[in-house]
Amino acid sequence: MAGLAVIPNVRAQQNLIPYAKPIIGTEKMGHTFPGATVPFGAVQLSPDTDTLSYEFNGKYNKDVYKYCAGYQYDDPTIVGFSHTHFSGTGHSDLGDFLIMPTTGALQLNPGTEQNPGSGYRSVYSHANETAEPGYYKVKLDDHNILAELTTSTRVGFHQYTFPQSDQAHIILDLMAGIYNYEDKNVWTVVRVENDTLITGYRQTNGWSRTRTVYFAMTFSKPISEYGCRDYSKKQVYKGFWRKFDQTKNFPDLAGKQLRMYFDFKTDAKEKVKMKFALSPVSTKNAIENMKAEIPHWDFEKTKAEAQQLWNAELNKIVIKTSSQEEMINFYTAMYHAALMPTIYMDRNGEYKGLDQQVHKAEGFTNYTSFSLWDTYRAFHPYLNLIQPSRNADIIRSMMAHYDQSVLKMLPIWSHYANDNWCMSGYHSVSVIADAVIKGNVPFDANKVLDACIATATKRNYEGIGEYMDKGYVPNEKNSVSVSNTLEYAYDDWSIAQMAKKLGRMEVYEQFIKRSENWRNVYDPSIGFMRPRLSDGSFKKEFDVLKTDGQGFIEGNAWNYSLYVPQNPDGMIELMGGKKRFVSHLDSLFTMHLPDEFFAETEDITREGIIGNYVHGNEPAHHVAYLYNWTDQPWKTQERVRMILKHQYHNGSAGLGGNDDCGQMSAWYIFSSLGFYPVAPGSDQYWLGSPSIQTASLHLENGKIFTVEATNQSDKNVYVKSVSLNDKPLKERFITHDQIMQGGKITFQMSAKPMK
Amino acid sequence: MAGLAVIPNVRAQQNLIPYAKPIIGTEKMGHTFPGATVPFGAVQLSPDTDTLSYEFNGKYNKDVYKYCAGYQYDDPTIVGFSHTHFSGTGHSDLGDFLIMPTTGALQLNPGTEQNPGSGYRSVYSHANETAEPGYYKVKLDDHNILAELTTSTRVGFHQYTFPQSDQAHIILDLMAGIYNYEDKNVWTVVRVENDTLITGYRQTNGWSRTRTVYFAMTFSKPISEYGCRDYSKKQVYKGFWRKFDQTKNFPDLAGKQLRMYFDFKTDAKEKVKMKFALSPVSTKNAIENMKAEIPHWDFEKTKAEAQQLWNAELNKIVIKTSSQEEMINFYTAMYHAALMPTIYMDRNGEYKGLDQQVHKAEGFTNYTSFSLWDTYRAFHPYLNLIQPSRNADIIRSMMAHYDQSVLKMLPIWSHYANDNWCMSGYHSVSVIADAVIKGNVPFDANKVLDACIATATKRNYEGIGEYMDKGYVPNEKNSVSVSNTLEYAYDDWSIAQMAKKLGRMEVYEQFIKRSENWRNVYDPSIGFMRPRLSDGSFKKEFDVLKTDGQGFIEGNAWNYSLYVPQNPDGMIELMGGKKRFVSHLDSLFTMHLPDEFFAETEDITREGIIGNYVHGNEPAHHVAYLYNWTDQPWKTQERVRMILKHQYHNGSAGLGGNDDCGQMSAWYIFSSLGFYPVAPGSDQYWLGSPSIQTASLHLENGKIFTVEATNQSDKNVYVKSVSLNDKPLKERFITHDQIMQGGKITFQMSAKPMK
Repeated sequence: MAGLAVIPNVRAQQNLIPYAKPIIGTEKMGHTFPGATVPFGAVQLSPDTDTLSYEFNGKYNKDVYKYCAGYQYDDPTIVGFSHTHFSGTGHSDLGDFLIMPTTGALQLNPGTEQNPGSGYRSVYSHANETAEPGYYKVKLDDHNILAELTTSTRVGFHQYTFPQSDQAHIILDLMAGIYNYEDKNVWTVVRVENDTLITGYRQTNGWSRTRTVYFAMTFSKPISEYGCRDYSKKQVYKGFWRKFDQTKNFPDLAGKQLRMYFDFKTDAKEKVKMKFALSPVSTKNAIENMKAEIPHWDFEKTKAEAQQLWNAELNKIVIKTSSQEEMINFYTAMYHAALMPTIYMDRNGEYKGLDQQVHKAEGFTNYTSFSLWDTYRAFHPYLNLIQPSRNADIIRSMMAHYDQSVLKMLPIWSHYANDNWCMSGYHSVSVIADAVIKGNVPFDANKVLDACIATATKRNYEGIGEYMDKGYVPNEKNSVSVSNTLEYAYDDWSIAQMAKKLGRMEVYEQFIKRSENWRNVYDPSIGFMRPRLSDGSFKKEFDVLKTDGQGFIEGNAWNYSLYVPQNPDGMIELMGGKKRFVSHLDSLFTMHLPDEFFAETEDITREGIIGNYVHGNEPAHHVAYLYNWTDQPWKTQERVRMILKHQYHNGSAGLGGNDDCGQMSAWYIFSSLGFYPVAPGSDQYWLGSPSIQTASLHLENGKIFTVEATNQSDKNVYVKSVSLNDKPLKERFITHDQIMQGGKITFQMSAKPMK
Repeated sequence: MAGLAVIPNVRAQQNLIPYAKPIIGTEKMGHTFPGATVPFGAVQLSPDTDTLSYEFNGKYNKDVYKYCAGYQYDDPTIVGFSHTHFSGTGHSDLGDFLIMPTTGALQLNPGTEQNPGSGYRSVYSHANETAEPGYYKVKLDDHNILAELTTSTRVGFHQYTFPQSDQAHIILDLMAGIYNYEDKNVWTVVRVENDTLITGYRQTNGWSRTRTVYFAMTFSKPISEYGCRDYSKKQVYKGFWRKFDQTKNFPDLAGKQLRMYFDFKTDAKEKVKMKFALSPVSTKNAIENMKAEIPHWDFEKTKAEAQQLWNAELNKIVIKTSSQEEMINFYTAMYHAALMPTIYMDRNGEYKGLDQQVHKAEGFTNYTSFSLWDTYRAFHPYLNLIQPSRNADIIRSMMAHYDQSVLKMLPIWSHYANDNWCMSGYHSVSVIADAVIKGNVPFDANKVLDACIATATKRNYEGIGEYMDKGYVPNEKNSVSVSNTLEYAYDDWSIAQMAKKLGRMEVYEQFIKRSENWRNVYDPSIGFMRPRLSDGSFKKEFDVLKTDGQGFIEGNAWNYSLYVPQNPDGMIELMGGKKRFVSHLDSLFTMHLPDEFFAETEDITREGIIGNYVHGNEPAHHVAYLYNWTDQPWKTQERVRMILKHQYHNGSAGLGGNDDCGQMSAWYIFSSLGFYPVAPGSDQYWLGSPSIQTASLHLENGKIFTVEATNQSDKNVYVKSVSLNDKPLKERFITHDQIMQGGKITFQMSAKPMK
């Protein structure tokens, strides 16, 4: 059935819900949201603790960054509950359709954190807050209302327990939004169809340039009165407002800055319920989504269904660990790795495409919100392993994007019928190559290869033309020239792998040659990757610890110089051989990064760093595994266990950096299982040190792959030996095929490194 | 075939094209446009001589009023050619997709009239200008370009003859528009699909609150370069612009304020052609409209087809007159009475409805732009007579509007999926009643009656609630309380007529009672209609010559007091009997309206007035015919001929007031034929004095009705006798049935009144 998670083979499921804690990462830099959603659901119904403007008095408002997911654990007030949220991003958007139940005198202004009584927001306490997969509950102290939220795939279900009141309100703030730039709201339309049904849409211009979300909301009891205010600085044609009083009980509304209220009279402990359905296409589709997904008013039933979906999702890997904390870290990681991308189509398969036309997804589920610079690394390989059919649908969605693109490009960072082209590289090609290499190809592989080639040869995008001509992106042309050169080279390697598998050797030759371009930005005189100018010379002013203005993005030269996942042997050789390389790696983890340089490292807390190794950002996610290419693989084991231990915690501040749409979490899942896909597009998972005791991977093909770590403990982080199906494993990696056949890998753990 | 005019029975057609002069009314107050269109076409491709802002420095810019149709004959420059125009309105909108061909250095600013060289606009001369039905031509002096325009129903066809130039440009100004308020542009999207095809849409907020028009444009030769500028004060997310240079050859554009250019190299006298298709639904539909309607590059073929449609339209009434000027006045009136409403659906029947959803017109052609306060009087009766099937489709379109309306109201003044509720009354009901009474009912008459009742009982609209309770609209509630009371009463009468015919006597009783409400605003102490307050008293300060603040709209008490078309006998009696009434009527035509009062009379020139009779506005359009209810019908004959003579002329300044979407022209057509529908909803056409010599009305039922005026001359304006099919006609009116049966009415004309 479209949009529902695939339920694995019937087997006794454990109740893993208690281990998945949506609250983890909601404090500081995690940028996760605590609210309710189903796996990969289109609706993320979650509390927002503030709705700041991106600009304040004409200047960038730094604090807006905190609210990428709408919620900061430290905040004392909740503004309301909105229906769309990214999980773990470092720039943001969404926050559509903020709902707030209130009592007492009507207030249509959100008020301030300092003076919550000045608006509709409410003080709340974490003691009165519960966040579970698919369920969120909080007491709104200022209004004496208990708010409960759950969802289906496309419908948010609100349940508000009011006190006795003649002045009970539900506010619909259509001005509110995450990263709410001035003029972000382009247009809003609302129709009060009858006394229980409201429809409309909201069109925004933000990180997604042209985005429209349609809605249908319905109440469990008729509204007694309702009204609207238009807060636009200017209303163009005033005649509309002369003919009717449009502020009260007027059902046909439109404007740039609207806030609405719906009034009720409530008895003590009366539950007023509301269903709020979304559609990317039309209010008609939103109504159909609502009727199909939640045709009743039984909140508990919807909550139980949501949690059943989550339990099925979490049961795909069943583990045993030595501590409750590790159980929570693991299943919270699985939870966070099942939030994005999100389903982006209606029950009838319709969605708005990149060309702003309505399309129908034929034979696949369409997804959106691809943070590919982050997720190509471990998240998509994780899907390829544990739910390849979903990953194939994601690739089909990318191909639909490509087909609709007038630029003829695969997505870079795309959401809701737009691409914001954020970050470096063209990593759709990596996601696709990884699927092709691993045999997950229920689509026309040659066609997707053509799309990859078209994207990788888009000359006027981010220095690609110069990269093709010179073998590197000149720094004058592009402020992140080294990152781009390195990431393009890796992506090119992944295209080459795919081409080879498909027998298109001409393409292979072209791209395998390009994949060596990383060499062109290596400065042997200093032993680091370094920005190069058009004339071939290296940029003079250069600091290997700085991030800003050094040709990199979210990483300094110390981290980024290690970014040659496609050819570690070559890199090690160029960097002076294994010995010298080990000492470079060691220093990365042990040196001290002075505060002045840390300040430039975006998206992470001080705890998101180990030495100068920045785990809170992505470029170094493969780095701990690089010891495997040296004579000291035990250092991989040690470092991985250290990162697992120090970078992931229980509690709201449990993530040292942005979760980045599941990438940080996917790193956790792989690494705690003992292996990691260093170079997606290869079929190899390189071994580290499992932190679990046992794990059963329930594969989509019906087979089970088991990981066992014997003699496991917090001290026994070193791997003494590894066997696959009880035969010694000679390599330092296992292959995708070996896993997919089912079986068992056994790690003999030890307190001593195997030097 | 959807959207094409019905071709009348094959018969020898005269070439009437030379008599229809689109230039008439383009100077001063006519507000007509000179450009190319087909009958009731969706595209009106016409030159705009200025694009002013509705506001200037925060104040209403009076001059914008001149540009309701985009063109003022006196202006020395043309800014460009845009694709949508109202004809003859007194408020405005549209002006979508302004195109301007230029040569020389690229200029993306329109420049000023005073200094045309400062921008892309061009000086032109009327000597080099031709305006015919379906064809417009002008030489653009500044650029040495000959511009020619023609259209099909949904596609504009441009043909530009360039000089030899390495710098030939076609500008697409997406900021331009008629009544271009600040922030009128809500959003614009453009895709350069390939080097000859561009698609996109423009979304505006103006007189139509939420309006989107989609387009597809294609060139006859590939563009060599193209580019775009975004003139928005603020672009929200600048990252988009960092990734690509979006100013040049970048195909994926969106923003609030865009202007684009397309470059060519041209040889001497090279014709660059362009087809520009519109759709209310999608760019896909726009492309389909283009392919279906103009699948070639033969400009002359499209022009010939457009003029063939026009000739068929004009041949519906074939007349003989004593002067060339009268021929031109008559056929120009027929031309102007075939411009609006406009077809509002794609070739596949799809259109965007009032609910902002895509609908499909099943079994009818959907129309938009209903200026009903104007057009219910003579224009819709004219359609009912000469092309009832189109009028029935217009009613079906009104019913679709009603079905989509969350307010459950028929249109007031609606265009493009919105209602601006402009002017007084709910005259959809009159249009519907007129069709029902005249037997033009290919729809569910009871359902439309229900819609009429729902509209007429919308208590919170414009004082209807008070009107229903008190029998009049109290002046404190509503600044045009008398106009509203009088027009509601007439509309109610028309509902009553329809109800009676349908046998719904309860409805009849209710509304026939309401139809007498005009009596409640008559002040016998002064003999005029007068604003009344809630307490029953009349407004103290009152001036029968003033218009502003006196309870009327576009008419003073002297004119509006005669507005009881449904019951002239009752009105005359209340006003003191026939003798006194004649003297009131006489004085209306002969008194002098001082300048101070004229200044308040909107929409007309000084010539639009005869005495205090304001022909340039609509409320008195039936007034000259009221002598028929007295003992001096010869004064109707005299006045009608005087109005025909003095209010309609050849030449650009030929109309003394706004043509008002064909109403002024329909008055001309009826009156010059010798009869007029004083009260639509009745089957009677009251006799005046024909100005033609003979006229043949080619009716849709295949019959021909002939009008003959024997002994006709400019002096013989009085009717000596009238015979119908050679039998003396006793009544002062003929009925709809008498006309529809075919036959002949003969007026014996005389220089002496039959006293």
